Amino acid sequence: MLSKSQVSLLKSLQQKKFRREHGFFLVEGHRSIAEFIDSPYRVEAVYHTPAFSPKVLKLSQKINSCEISVTELEKISSLKTPQDAIAQVRIPEWPVLHHSELKGKFSLALDGIQDPGNLGTIIRIADWFGINDIICSEDTVDAYNPKVVQACMGSLARTKVHYVDLVDFLGKIKLPVFGALLDGSNIYQTDFGGEGLILMGNEGNGIRPEIERKVIQAVTIPRIGKAESLNVAIATALFCSEISRNR
Amino acid sequence: MLSKSQVSLLKSLQQKKFRREHGFFLVEGHRSIAEFIDSPYRVEAVYHTPAFSPKVLKLSQKINSCEISVTELEKISSLKTPQDAIAQVRIPEWPVLHHSELKGKFSLALDGIQDPGNLGTIIRIADWFGINDIICSEDTVDAYNPKVVQACMGSLARTKVHYVDLVDFLGKIKLPVFGALLDGSNIYQTDFGGEGLILMGNEGNGIRPEIERKVIQAVTIPRIGKAESLNVAIATALFCSEISRNR
Repeated sequence: MLSKSQVSLLKSLQQKKFRREHGFFLVEGHRSIAEFIDSPYRVEAVYHTPAFSPKVLKLSQKINSCEISVTELEKISSLKTPQDAIAQVRIPEWPVLHHSELKGKFSLALDGIQDPGNLGTIIRIADWFGINDIICSEDTVDAYNPKVVQACMGSLARTKVHYVDLVDFLGKIKLPVFGALLDGSNIYQTDFGGEGLILMGNEGNGIRPEIERKVIQAVTIPRIGKAESLNVAIATALFCSEISRNR
Repeated sequence: MLSKSQVSLLKSLQQKKFRREHGFFLVEGHRSIAEFIDSPYRVEAVYHTPAFSPKVLKLSQKINSCEISVTELEKISSLKTPQDAIAQVRIPEWPVLHHSELKGKFSLALDGIQDPGNLGTIIRIADWFGINDIICSEDTVDAYNPKVVQACMGSLARTKVHYVDLVDFLGKIKLPVFGALLDGSNIYQTDFGGEGLILMGNEGNGIRPEIERKVIQAVTIPRIGKAESLNVAIATALFCSEISRNR
C-alpha cells in the first residue's frame, strides 16, 4: 500500500522538473527493471502487483520491494496499459567527460533532438553498436522522460547520456566531428578513421550553425528515391552501421 | 458544412473494415495531401478549414474541395491536434505483381509487421532508397491505417504496398530472397547481387517458418553491444543502405 505522499512523489517523476528536484526516474516493466538492477544505476525501490514475484528480479537487500494493487500501479504509471512493476531509479551523475575517455572509439553527439521516441531509439541503436556515450545539447529531450525510457527497452542501463554545453564541449574535445548534413561527402565513401563523434541535429532544423562550425567533415546519406527526409534515428543507425562495418 | 452521413463516412475510414467497404482512406495535412495529388492515387475530396487556402494544392477540377469548420475537422480527424486539411483518397488496386516487374531491382517483403509506426517508417525508408514495391503478408498492418499514413509523411504516394499470400507469392517469384534472420551471413560481407527481395519479419516473432523456407540467404546485422534487438524499421534501413552502397 502506497502512502499519499509516495503516490504524489512517484507521479511527479513523469515531469522533468520533479525528476531533477528528487533525483529519481521511473522504469516500467520487469524486463527493463532487470537491466537496471544489473547495471551501475542505483535502483531504489520496486513496486509490483501481487501477480508478479519480485524474486525473478534477484533484488539485493539494498532495494526496497513493495507490493501494490493494480489500481495503485495505474495511478503511478505513465503507460496506458501499465506493466507488472515500476522501479524508482536514481538519476546518475556521470563525471565530466574528458577527451581521454572518448579516444580510440566513436560516440554520438545530439544537437536538440526533441522527440522522446527518437532519443529512445537512438539509445537502443547505440547499445546495439557498442557505443557507450551519447553527448546531448542541454535542450535535447531528457533521457529520463518516461517515453524515452520506454523506447530504450533497457538499453539506457548500458549507455551514458551526458547533457553538456555542446558548443563548449566540441570546442574542447580533440576528436574529429562528423556531422550529418546536406551536401557533405557520401557516407559510403567517407573514411571515418578509428575515432570521433557522430553529430546528429534536431528533427526539423538540423544542426545549429554555431555547432556546425565544429564539424570537421560533413557527411550525407545519398538519396536515391524521393522521400523528403530520413528520420533522425534511422540516419543515426546508418552512421553507426558504416562505422561498424569498417571495424 | 458536412452532412451527418459525410461525417459518419469520413470517421468510419479510421477503421480498416470501413476503408475496405468504401474503398477510401484519409490523408491529413496539406503537405501530405499535395504528394497524393501529384501521384497515381485518386484524391476524391479535400476538406479544409477557412484558414487554409486550397489553392496551394493546385487542385484539378475533378477534386472536390469543401470548406469546413475547425470543429468539423476535429470530428473527422484521427489526430489529437488536427492539421489544416483532410483528403479522402481512393485505395488503389495495384495489378497483380509479376516476376518481370521486380526483375533487376530490389523490393521489400514484410511478414506480419504489426506496428503502424514501423510500417510507416519502412515506407518512408523505401521511398528514400528508391524502392517502389513493398509486398506484405495479409496480416501485416494496413498501409491505409491513419497512423501509417501519418508516419509515411507522403512517401506512401510514391510506393506500392501490395497485400498477398506471401508463401504463395515467394514460391512463384524467381528472385533471390534475403531474410533478416539470426545466424545468417554478416550483412557487411553478403553479396546481394543486383536484384531480389529483402524479407523482414514480425516485431516479436520474426519470420514465420513456412516463409523462412523461401529464403535463399539468411542475413544478420552483427551486434557489437548488448541491446537485445534492433527495431524492424532500423534493420530495414540498414539492409536498404547496404544494397544502396553497392549500386
